[in-house]
Amino acid sequence: MSIDESDIPALARGCAILGTGGGGDVRTGSLAAVRAIRAYGEVPLVELADLPGDALVVPLSGIGAPTVGHEMIHGEDEPKRVAEEVERLFGRPPSAIMSSEIGGSNGVGPVAWAARLGVPLLDADGMGRAFPEVQMVSMYVAGLPADLVIMSDIVGNVVTIRPIDGLWSERLARAVCVAAGSHALMADYVLTAGRARGAVIEGTVTRALGIGRATEGAADPLGALQDRLGAVRLITGKLTDVDRRTTGGFVRGTATIEGTGDERGRRLTVELQNENLVAVEDGAVRAGVRAGVRAMVPDLITIVDTETAAAVQTESLRYGQRVSVLAWPCDPLWRTPKGLETAGPRAFGYDLDYVPVEELTAHG
Amino acid sequence: MSIDESDIPALARGCAILGTGGGGDVRTGSLAAVRAIRAYGEVPLVELADLPGDALVVPLSGIGAPTVGHEMIHGEDEPKRVAEEVERLFGRPPSAIMSSEIGGSNGVGPVAWAARLGVPLLDADGMGRAFPEVQMVSMYVAGLPADLVIMSDIVGNVVTIRPIDGLWSERLARAVCVAAGSHALMADYVLTAGRARGAVIEGTVTRALGIGRATEGAADPLGALQDRLGAVRLITGKLTDVDRRTTGGFVRGTATIEGTGDERGRRLTVELQNENLVAVEDGAVRAGVRAGVRAMVPDLITIVDTETAAAVQTESLRYGQRVSVLAWPCDPLWRTPKGLETAGPRAFGYDLDYVPVEELTAHG
Repeated sequence: MSIDESDIPALARGCAILGTGGGGDVRTGSLAAVRAIRAYGEVPLVELADLPGDALVVPLSGIGAPTVGHEMIHGEDEPKRVAEEVERLFGRPPSAIMSSEIGGSNGVGPVAWAARLGVPLLDADGMGRAFPEVQMVSMYVAGLPADLVIMSDIVGNVVTIRPIDGLWSERLARAVCVAAGSHALMADYVLTAGRARGAVIEGTVTRALGIGRATEGAADPLGALQDRLGAVRLITGKLTDVDRRTTGGFVRGTATIEGTGDERGRRLTVELQNENLVAVEDGAVRAGVRAGVRAMVPDLITIVDTETAAAVQTESLRYGQRVSVLAWPCDPLWRTPKGLETAGPRAFGYDLDYVPVEELTAHG
Repeated sequence: MSIDESDIPALARGCAILGTGGGGDVRTGSLAAVRAIRAYGEVPLVELADLPGDALVVPLSGIGAPTVGHEMIHGEDEPKRVAEEVERLFGRPPSAIMSSEIGGSNGVGPVAWAARLGVPLLDADGMGRAFPEVQMVSMYVAGLPADLVIMSDIVGNVVTIRPIDGLWSERLARAVCVAAGSHALMADYVLTAGRARGAVIEGTVTRALGIGRATEGAADPLGALQDRLGAVRLITGKLTDVDRRTTGGFVRGTATIEGTGDERGRRLTVELQNENLVAVEDGAVRAGVRAGVRAMVPDLITIVDTETAAAVQTESLRYGQRVSVLAWPCDPLWRTPKGLETAGPRAFGYDLDYVPVEELTAHG
């Protein structure tokens, strides 16, 4: 199959839901995708099994603070510069582009990047959601060496990092990103299709499209979305407090939702770092105390408009919005010991043992 | 000729004088040079004319705040990692190492790096002195494209930057340097011997050795040094005030010297940013007012111990030291319009038109 202009709105809605508040503003990625498809034609969507084992897959993502990415006009030559560097280093051009993170703008942007390069998009990504740090990808969890990062910024600089590990990869890429104006296009874990098997999360472009289409024309969009995701509804109410600041290339903060209607008197706080990380009822997360915690990273927590079921991204949170909070299980990869070490609650500074959302909400 | 262990003290003294206070602590470079020569043997010193036109010359320097470089134990594998990256990108290994800046530790360190790699050292550098920013090199002034920077840090990360210009080269390299612990080894303007002609300052290793030897056993070391450099003595006195802080990978500050003996009542202030930049008598530099300015960058200003004529580096400035301040002309390359635009007083934020030290001190 191919992705054409008519698929972009559904893809964008699905990617916003999977973005758990982050991954960049999907409007930015959508505009870029529509513009590129009009100029270069539709983008073939391929499965890993369709590619020869030695085909080069280039995982791409925008890196930077969403509030900055949102406002910057993206250059159009970044994908070309990354592809040129890939060809210089590997002696052959990319066979396919992959989204590093399906959540948010980074799930839609790769359609534009693939269109510009004239290569197919792989139906897979490295997260099955969005995460704020570059080492938080399935390739890292699968034990692939984080031996090469290629970055291209809007002014035309290209930076190649050969880090000793994933944490240095994050530290150096973030420093380059901040120096380059807090936004850049990044290729991380360039790999062959052969090595990608078992190291990427397959089918996630198709899944995002399906999520986006689930609410189209639905009488009860919130219910339709919940069914599609297999999600628990944590609260329905009103956004009463948003505390959000941009520091060191990240957006950090909290969003507080107070219950309305039948749920009057309840209060849920969502803690976020680009993405929504922890949802806790009646209070803040305290060291080691998980009383009140209803869901935690790497499980997915998304704030949606109660009426339309559209995701509300971190940068669009506003006092008084009528919202519901949904939570659902992450890909099993993230529940392995290496997965939790990489992107569990402690990786974000929370002194909490991970408990799956199904258990946390079973008696809720 | 070759550089052996017995040459290192003189080379270090000369490089410290040419460092105008900066370029890193020469003791660090000296220790590394002695250790590497003992392990790998003496280092051939070659002239540009000795190399075939297509021989690869790799200009190397340490980048970072001197106060940090001073205290960090340097890794020994950085030169090897840079050379491997050069070979990966150019398809052949380096034929010679060149010091990017002859001033300070960066003039002595390349002896160690060349010894470890088993390649000759080129008798040339990119500054004829020391400068704080990476675009302030003769290759940039000569119009060579700043198209590649290779950095290797102490933990083993390798970063390659393809910047759009010299200023972006500086901005990105500095960001990587700070993220990597404020110190890294850097190859900038990897070039063939053919392209190096007219784009590097030749003979500066020999010059540094000659400066270092001028004071050996001299009855009047200060006079001998002054003669060798063709330098003017701006003041002899006592260090009465040192204001120094490390921010964003740089050391910035001022040093004030009050005259003693015949010069009692006089006061000279040296403004510095890693290196000594402006010497002004009786007052601070005010916008556009050069009254009292006795020497300014790119001319060289070095504070020396009055008795031994050894250079006092920025990080060693101490209240009460008996010092003299010498100033002498820079290489003619720095007095061209492009040279002054790159490293003249305005490049450092001083609202001053450049006037050669010979003119500023002719009526002093």
